[in-house]
Amino acid sequence: MTPFTDRLRSVQLARQSLLCIGLDTDVTRLPSHLPRTPEGVLEFNKRIIDATHDLACAYKLNLAFYEALGEQGWSVLNATRRHLPASVIAIADGKRGDIGSSSELYARSLVQELAFDASTVHPYMGRDSLEPFFRSPGHGVFVLTLTSNTGARDLQYLKTGGKPLYEAVIARVKRWNTNHNLGLVAGATRPAQLKRIRSLAPQLPLLIPGVGAQGGDLKRAVLNGCNREGLLAIINAGRNVIYASGGTDFAEAARQAATTMRDQINQVRSPQR
Amino acid sequence: MTPFTDRLRSVQLARQSLLCIGLDTDVTRLPSHLPRTPEGVLEFNKRIIDATHDLACAYKLNLAFYEALGEQGWSVLNATRRHLPASVIAIADGKRGDIGSSSELYARSLVQELAFDASTVHPYMGRDSLEPFFRSPGHGVFVLTLTSNTGARDLQYLKTGGKPLYEAVIARVKRWNTNHNLGLVAGATRPAQLKRIRSLAPQLPLLIPGVGAQGGDLKRAVLNGCNREGLLAIINAGRNVIYASGGTDFAEAARQAATTMRDQINQVRSPQR
Repeated sequence: MTPFTDRLRSVQLARQSLLCIGLDTDVTRLPSHLPRTPEGVLEFNKRIIDATHDLACAYKLNLAFYEALGEQGWSVLNATRRHLPASVIAIADGKRGDIGSSSELYARSLVQELAFDASTVHPYMGRDSLEPFFRSPGHGVFVLTLTSNTGARDLQYLKTGGKPLYEAVIARVKRWNTNHNLGLVAGATRPAQLKRIRSLAPQLPLLIPGVGAQGGDLKRAVLNGCNREGLLAIINAGRNVIYASGGTDFAEAARQAATTMRDQINQVRSPQR
Repeated sequence: MTPFTDRLRSVQLARQSLLCIGLDTDVTRLPSHLPRTPEGVLEFNKRIIDATHDLACAYKLNLAFYEALGEQGWSVLNATRRHLPASVIAIADGKRGDIGSSSELYARSLVQELAFDASTVHPYMGRDSLEPFFRSPGHGVFVLTLTSNTGARDLQYLKTGGKPLYEAVIARVKRWNTNHNLGLVAGATRPAQLKRIRSLAPQLPLLIPGVGAQGGDLKRAVLNGCNREGLLAIINAGRNVIYASGGTDFAEAARQAATTMRDQINQVRSPQR
């Protein structure tokens, strides 16, 4: 089985795209001609995927948006995931983290049954809480490191051994990465720290949320987040792509927004290639 | 609205029980006469609840076990929660933690739609990631502090400002506790630290997993976890209660195991009352 990091690199090279589209579809923000129901969410997702799948290296589904659909949430999540072509990376953004026996169940559900290619996880409970996710080399695991929200300052910057806690997380992730499938979540809202994170982990995939609606600067996220080849940064775009238009042209507008963003990313990273 | 901590205290006093029953029902471990299906899990849960609800102050449902049921998971979770009497505390053990907008959705689902009385959350992303859960004073929020698994050592013991990271978590939880509804998760597998945690947080509810299958000592968990009134420790018993028998007498056996455990807890805490 190809280790996740190698697969990600291949996909990014083949598609010439570092763009990840966040399918965080809020039923209350669907275009007005679609029903505000779980079926409407699925229809929306399928049309976004159909209109953009050649432009992105990955899609990220935040599980909160599917759990919010209640009884039908799992089915919409499953059907959306099945609609993604095998040529892109499907990321389950569930930020899991539990004791081993519970983590086994979460992993069975996300890795095996829903067959996501990658997951996001919380580091706080340590190695054994994450091992069920990273056991399979083909499955990528992005460990929360320095997040894009304001609350990141509450714990992640605390000094331990003279360094911020998130650097202690990086050191552990590097140690645990014997399957060549671990990565880090590092927010675009913290460009200087992102640069430092890339220097500490030159070859780990970085999942970078926070561009756009959350205020992160795209250019600096790309420059600071890529490795020396101009790869292994996954730049997540959420609301500014999927809600580019609230009208019947929403899919075409999403395609246009995704094209622009992919190209902007490539312009910035091109000197490094 | 009664703040969660006051309600917990009232429930524990009225029922004279600190016992929490973990409904972490594994479809592969159902008694052989029940179907190994989501319906079987619900039937099992209902019979366990019917047989034990006068003995416990709380029930804790680890969401991993329900997510593992796939399409029917949400319905089984919802129906199990609805089957719990209003006189006990229903805890959603989902260990959530996400940026504000996603956390809002998780909270809407668990706090409002499923109407759980309390939730567990990860501290790593800080205050704004938890605020949607603790905004409502009636909803209890248990922040992971020192967990019962081996991986707890990877980050939670790291020294920051001369103290372990989990003490920094406690300091923040105390600061955020303006609604009188925050608590801590502290594993029974670490009795000395549990004593220290109680001394640092004399009036916070402590959710204490790890007794039984995970090896934690019940007596020390109770002595070290209770406040001066002999209250506000929630002692979770999982597998040793719900799987007390694998036969048709499983509910009666669970009742017997729960009675024994409630009484053992009360014997230990009685000198403090």
